[in-house]
Amino acid sequence: MGPSRLHGLIDGVFAIALTLLVLDLPRPRDSAHLAHDLADQWPSYAAYLVSFVTVGILWIEHHGMMSAVRQINRRFLERTLLFLLFVSIIPWPTAIAADYADQGSQATAAAVLYAGVMMLMGLSFALSWQYLAAHPQLVAEPARTALRAGTRRALLGGLVYAVAIAVAFLSPTASFAIDAVVALYFAASKTEVPGLIHRAAQAGEE
Amino acid sequence: MGPSRLHGLIDGVFAIALTLLVLDLPRPRDSAHLAHDLADQWPSYAAYLVSFVTVGILWIEHHGMMSAVRQINRRFLERTLLFLLFVSIIPWPTAIAADYADQGSQATAAAVLYAGVMMLMGLSFALSWQYLAAHPQLVAEPARTALRAGTRRALLGGLVYAVAIAVAFLSPTASFAIDAVVALYFAASKTEVPGLIHRAAQAGEE
Amino acid sequence: MGPSRLHGLIDGVFAIALTLLVLDLPRPRDSAHLAHDLADQWPSYAAYLVSFVTVGILWIEHHGMMSAVRQINRRFLERTLLFLLFVSIIPWPTAIAADYADQGSQATAAAVLYAGVMMLMGLSFALSWQYLAAHPQLVAEPARTALRAGTRRALLGGLVYAVAIAVAFLSPTASFAIDAVVALYFAASKTEVPGLIHRAAQAGEE
Amino acid sequence: MGPSRLHGLIDGVFAIALTLLVLDLPRPRDSAHLAHDLADQWPSYAAYLVSFVTVGILWIEHHGMMSAVRQINRRFLERTLLFLLFVSIIPWPTAIAADYADQGSQATAAAVLYAGVMMLMGLSFALSWQYLAAHPQLVAEPARTALRAGTRRALLGGLVYAVAIAVAFLSPTASFAIDAVVALYFAASKTEVPGLIHRAAQAGEE
Repeated sequence: MGPSRLHGLIDGVFAIALTLLVLDLPRPRDSAHLAHDLADQWPSYAAYLVSFVTVGILWIEHHGMMSAVRQINRRFLERTLLFLLFVSIIPWPTAIAADYADQGSQATAAAVLYAGVMMLMGLSFALSWQYLAAHPQLVAEPARTALRAGTRRALLGGLVYAVAIAVAFLSPTASFAIDAVVALYFAASKTEVPGLIHRAAQAGEE
Repeated sequence: MGPSRLHGLIDGVFAIALTLLVLDLPRPRDSAHLAHDLADQWPSYAAYLVSFVTVGILWIEHHGMMSAVRQINRRFLERTLLFLLFVSIIPWPTAIAADYADQGSQATAAAVLYAGVMMLMGLSFALSWQYLAAHPQLVAEPARTALRAGTRRALLGGLVYAVAIAVAFLSPTASFAIDAVVALYFAASKTEVPGLIHRAAQAGEE
Repeated sequence: MGPSRLHGLIDGVFAIALTLLVLDLPRPRDSAHLAHDLADQWPSYAAYLVSFVTVGILWIEHHGMMSAVRQINRRFLERTLLFLLFVSIIPWPTAIAADYADQGSQATAAAVLYAGVMMLMGLSFALSWQYLAAHPQLVAEPARTALRAGTRRALLGGLVYAVAIAVAFLSPTASFAIDAVVALYFAASKTEVPGLIHRAAQAGEE
Repeated sequence: MGPSRLHGLIDGVFAIALTLLVLDLPRPRDSAHLAHDLADQWPSYAAYLVSFVTVGILWIEHHGMMSAVRQINRRFLERTLLFLLFVSIIPWPTAIAADYADQGSQATAAAVLYAGVMMLMGLSFALSWQYLAAHPQLVAEPARTALRAGTRRALLGGLVYAVAIAVAFLSPTASFAIDAVVALYFAASKTEVPGLIHRAAQAGEE
């Protein structure tokens, strides 16, 4: 089974998750100080931005992985669905993080929830990489040597969120800051996985 | 007419149905015990999970069927739309199941509604299989022998939900448990329809 | 410019319009008579069904038209966007029709709104057909003779809704019945446009 | 990396942004004067229309740009994501503009917000053009000469919205009128970028 049709489902879920985030940007009702009330909602904008960038970068990374895949099977499809489960759920912890980020003692639970979903998203991405590393025949030959680096990179993402969960009990603000820094770090890295795209390109496909 | 463009509509409806489920995950407002209130919402998470897995597995199964289809006609398109009708409706019984699963006597109606929509989804999937079995010229030759097995498998799914409807009058909890077990059973099966993908692959397509 | 990428936008808007309809299926809150309250919502189910079938059949008809298109230009893109405007708006009159269908004197306004949006959808579809009829070089040769029949068929759909608007002032129920009958009529017709698909197939494309 | 899969994400985000606009069309509840209450909501319809046309035309323009792109890299993907961030956010300022357009002193903030998001959308589109102009090897040869014109055109769009922001402090109504005129102006222009499509076509692709 070729991977092409799976792209339709993946891109659809990502596009919708990215776009549904907008439904949680609050719309002040009957405000007499609209400019002020809009400015007051900055935690919602920050949460929107961090989630959008994280999910967007994740799409790029996942797209990089998929560009090396030449064949898929049912077990790989199932791991992909598990990953999409956590992608599609993103608007939910984002809305809760925006609501409770500045709510004193409740902010810890919100920060744990947010980093927890992100961690599960990272770990389920690592599960996809790891499956490919264990079944290199599914992958274009020049890209096979990059599979372990990809697994490590996704695991690293997941583990940083584990740190963010622990930090949330000391300082929810610091925990959210870690979430934001992860997004920026992966946005600033030059390639998905060192050499992956280059090697896939050498294979002369996509 | 080739089936390729139909994939866009199918994948779109599935991706959106999977992702709209998130809109019904409740967001506690002004909670003073956020961690506790989040934990209290476990029926919503369970309903989300069962629906996501069921729809996800169904996408895999439907994808398996479509990978064998070489040509479509208007009647097949209409059966596909009927199937998509029930896929797109899933967030509705899911939200009601989450709201009423632990509401004593009202849980029966919620369990009947949930299993009822799932049953119609399964039966309409069986209708698509059955149409292909009756018009094998629409299907790649090596996959034709698998069409009856596919019809049976989809019918079986539909019939198990009929049992879940009957059980709901005795115990709604047992009925929901059946829904969850169906999802797990189909997730654990190795191939969509024994030999289908293998035979489609032999045909050298997709 | 080839038409292939336009399919992605069209299929996306259709898939989302079909699926967003579910957000307006009401979810009884804290009901003590869930089965009864669910049954009471039958106007919502009827509205859902008629809109889903109408939009679904329209996708099939539009898909038939597009399968004959070989080339597009900016003017055709703009007519397609106009058509998509009315497709994407469907959940709105559907929700209002469901809310007011049994509300005595207000039902007239709801029926006019519903049939009005449907009429504009049909007329904008006719505009696309008519543009192709005026620029046959955009269409595969064997399908060119079917363009006038396609324009007439879409116009006919639009005009029947004009009748439904007029009827709404006498009887909103009769007006809604016309909307339902149109959906059934087009669902029962055998081909999009007599000979179109056949001729497009002869052209050996898609 | 070829650009084909990026189209799936872009078309998905556009299709969803266009369709989510419908969720903000208000649905009068328990109205005793439905026709009158529907007519009263005209600012919502105007906002819907302007946003739909603006985003739709932007899709056409972006589609024109992408039809000339032959190769993409990670930096271009990131600029595309930035652009999609502003596309996906559109339903939010649209809903606020509809709510406050006729609310006296609050209308200024709504008009600034609306034109501000539109300006950022235009400028981020210009950033994509500019990246291609600086890396012409990503673009099909005959289209390379059009890249500066494309950048200028997108910048022009962004700058007109800067004017709309300034005007909002004098007259919010005039500011909204500018937004509407921009949509009409770009809808009326004959090609995305003078010569772009023609030149891309000469390259014999898409």
